[in-house]
Amino acid sequence: MFLLHHLDHTLKKVKGQIANALTILNLGLGAFAIMFILQNELRLGLLFITIAALTDRLDGAAARRFNSTSEFGKQLDSLSDIISFGVAPAFLLYQAVLFLFGLPGMLLTIFFIACGAIRLARFNISENPGFFIGLPITAAGCILTFHMLLVPFIPAPFFMFVPLILGICMISSFKVNKM
Amino acid sequence: MFLLHHLDHTLKKVKGQIANALTILNLGLGAFAIMFILQNELRLGLLFITIAALTDRLDGAAARRFNSTSEFGKQLDSLSDIISFGVAPAFLLYQAVLFLFGLPGMLLTIFFIACGAIRLARFNISENPGFFIGLPITAAGCILTFHMLLVPFIPAPFFMFVPLILGICMISSFKVNKM
Repeated sequence: MFLLHHLDHTLKKVKGQIANALTILNLGLGAFAIMFILQNELRLGLLFITIAALTDRLDGAAARRFNSTSEFGKQLDSLSDIISFGVAPAFLLYQAVLFLFGLPGMLLTIFFIACGAIRLARFNISENPGFFIGLPITAAGCILTFHMLLVPFIPAPFFMFVPLILGICMISSFKVNKM
Repeated sequence: MFLLHHLDHTLKKVKGQIANALTILNLGLGAFAIMFILQNELRLGLLFITIAALTDRLDGAAARRFNSTSEFGKQLDSLSDIISFGVAPAFLLYQAVLFLFGLPGMLLTIFFIACGAIRLARFNISENPGFFIGLPITAAGCILTFHMLLVPFIPAPFFMFVPLILGICMISSFKVNKM
């Protein structure tokens, strides 16, 4: 009886930590992506950001499934998101094409990350209204990432507008329905 | 009279945003540092992380001086800190020496960033107790950064322990007095 109770307690604790473990995995995948970008392995960078996006969907689902949503989990999720869908995609496009433009390319990279941080900070202090306000950073990061595949086919100056427009979409206040 | 009132209102608004502007500057300096690390300009990376650390002291001081501390500012500060004192220092030491160790070097880099995120998430949900619990990420990031200067003088395996120990210090629960 004691053993069963103890097992039940441990199981509950493990379930409570599954969502946070998935969030840390998301952060790790984003950091791996940056490491591959450092080594100029841009396609591996793209792959790891994509897997991070899939993991990001899982952690929220796991938290709801095991009824273990927490304020700590929400904070950790935002800190992981700024790495995997802010820093990693911005530097991926910088290494792929924006570096060609010198300082303006650098400033656009920073603009995208800063807008992502403002979006996440605003999201963290808002009540859950059932819809998103502004483009979520996961979506913006994935759209930016996949633009890398267009680099060989489209003139380079086009890519200056991508982080600019996505950044503005993140901090603007239109509503996006949750999927 | 109306003009004076309007001016006073605008001035209050500007003062309220000074701290947040400094926080965004901190984030930008951290992102610049990562860009220099990408270009293997490690000393410039070190310089920008150091300036970011000075800016980080200023934003808190400005928020208190202008009586404009806010939950949004606190969230934005953490998101900037994970970039400037988590991601940037970790990749600086990775590019300087840890890349020599392959996968273990990568995992230690990620370990440092993950501990920083856990430290910040925990800090964000805690009440202000007048002291820090665990080593603050700004201190850990600066200590990690300055280890880069020791790379020519100390055998490489020593640097495997630095992100490990600093990471553990961030998530441990000893008390550090605020300065």
